[in-house]
Amino acid sequence: MHSAGRSWLLLTGFVLFYVIYLLFGALVFSSVERPVEDKLRRDVEVLKREFLNQSCVNAAALERFLRKVLAANKYGVSVLSNSSAASNWDLASSMFFANTLVTTVGYGHTTPLSDTGKAFSILYALIGVPFTMLVLTACVQRIMHPLVLAPVGLLQRRMQPRPATTVHFVLLLAAVVLCFFVTPAAIFSTLEPSWSFLDGIYFCFISLCTIGLGDFVPGNRPRQKYRQLYQVSVIVYLFVGMMMMFLLLRTIHKMSDLHGLTTFLQLPRCEESDPDDDQKPIVEDGHEAQTPSFITEKEASKPLEPGSQPSYNTINTG
Amino acid sequence: MHSAGRSWLLLTGFVLFYVIYLLFGALVFSSVERPVEDKLRRDVEVLKREFLNQSCVNAAALERFLRKVLAANKYGVSVLSNSSAASNWDLASSMFFANTLVTTVGYGHTTPLSDTGKAFSILYALIGVPFTMLVLTACVQRIMHPLVLAPVGLLQRRMQPRPATTVHFVLLLAAVVLCFFVTPAAIFSTLEPSWSFLDGIYFCFISLCTIGLGDFVPGNRPRQKYRQLYQVSVIVYLFVGMMMMFLLLRTIHKMSDLHGLTTFLQLPRCEESDPDDDQKPIVEDGHEAQTPSFITEKEASKPLEPGSQPSYNTINTG
Repeated sequence: MHSAGRSWLLLTGFVLFYVIYLLFGALVFSSVERPVEDKLRRDVEVLKREFLNQSCVNAAALERFLRKVLAANKYGVSVLSNSSAASNWDLASSMFFANTLVTTVGYGHTTPLSDTGKAFSILYALIGVPFTMLVLTACVQRIMHPLVLAPVGLLQRRMQPRPATTVHFVLLLAAVVLCFFVTPAAIFSTLEPSWSFLDGIYFCFISLCTIGLGDFVPGNRPRQKYRQLYQVSVIVYLFVGMMMMFLLLRTIHKMSDLHGLTTFLQLPRCEESDPDDDQKPIVEDGHEAQTPSFITEKEASKPLEPGSQPSYNTINTG
Repeated sequence: MHSAGRSWLLLTGFVLFYVIYLLFGALVFSSVERPVEDKLRRDVEVLKREFLNQSCVNAAALERFLRKVLAANKYGVSVLSNSSAASNWDLASSMFFANTLVTTVGYGHTTPLSDTGKAFSILYALIGVPFTMLVLTACVQRIMHPLVLAPVGLLQRRMQPRPATTVHFVLLLAAVVLCFFVTPAAIFSTLEPSWSFLDGIYFCFISLCTIGLGDFVPGNRPRQKYRQLYQVSVIVYLFVGMMMMFLLLRTIHKMSDLHGLTTFLQLPRCEESDPDDDQKPIVEDGHEAQTPSFITEKEASKPLEPGSQPSYNTINTG
């Protein structure tokens, strides 16, 4: 119980630090990028006014105008009159951007304008991406028991291990598709007037796979109601959704171990370490003898390294 | 040797299938999206001509015009006169897009316009993303020996295991930064007139972390020389670069095992499976007795599952 308590304490610490890290990123991005964005926004407005004041439309002038309009648009600054109210770098939007960086989704609907913003993005992701994956891994470890191990254990009382895992996987997959694709897609297509249901599914899939094309980003409509709350909800959805994708992949990996597929393809297995590991910290008192070896003679002489990291677990979560 | 031979054969098959899969995706995307893009391009040109033919600039007309221009721009169709020559959906560009889907980089500088394209993107990524991670894992397993295990083995002859792994990691990190960040950034800032060296570093980092914001995408300049060759080179760079990021993370994970960090944080260790596993396929002749158990009684009763997938390995590669 002592170990389980420490484990939950660690997890709470991780999640808390994750939220603080997002807030910190949001504050820095907001303070660095907002002045640059404001200037660009004013420039674009002046440009538009000057263009409108011209007596006649001239092909060369239009070309120059459009070039600047499209350049501003690349940074999420729109020339359209109804979209100029909301900033892309208010606190919630900056937090949304910080979240797309650390989860590697990276929509790119807004991107840093300044060199400082770019440099900070690199540093922020350098720490944030590994840390987010660590938090996700820690969370998945904790939900593995109630969502995978316990139900499979129950099913195994009635049937053989292989069909039990297959039945469990089909049920888990159906639940994930329903809760993290179909339902959110329906909600998004209701909240975003220009989105069809397919657009919603497309957004959910492209986001939870961390592809993040950015052609559909929720909460980006001009005069969006409760925009900040909406954006924070999407951040939570992305985190929990990625966790479930991670869980699915881990279950698939365990299944392919069981069915001999990973061994057949000479890929790393979804190994279980010594169950007592968490009770006995290896370097608690600095005894070298207890430390696992990084490399053994036998391993060094092999062309292959059969036991390395699971491959299926790495999908969609980086 | 038999096993090593089969292992290389498998790897060659994987890489070959990866290339074929990219080509197949490129062909489908090109045939589905190009007609839609051509139509949009023509529409935008007509729109621009009509706008220029107006006797005077009108605020409402400009707003309508800009709205359509920005909508077209979202799909990578620019209204600027010098950019209308190259399609975003020729074979090389489509292959580039397919590659950003399966590696989850997802720049989003071009996105599918049609519903068919969106639906195909989902299906394509559904198979492509896991398969790409599988190919990357298989490749990393093969380069682990020459780049990590053998050099660490050599260093361990002269020093203790812990300093040996640290020295090796610093050297490996320096080599990766030099070969996959500094050098490519220098090349990109030479080839792309509007990119600074920082922009190059920013592009390399954002891409190899699979964030892929898409504010900087190589080979997208109008009248780019050798555009197709350039795009294919970037595809190769992204693949090899991601492989090296994967390798770095695996090395970090092994190091944190050795230093007791993974155990301390109650995270999964970078486990080594039985070295004979690749010689003995588990379900070769369907014996249930040889199959590893998906779940044990002991495991089912634990609140935590200490031996699950490595976390550090999952960073940046999904």
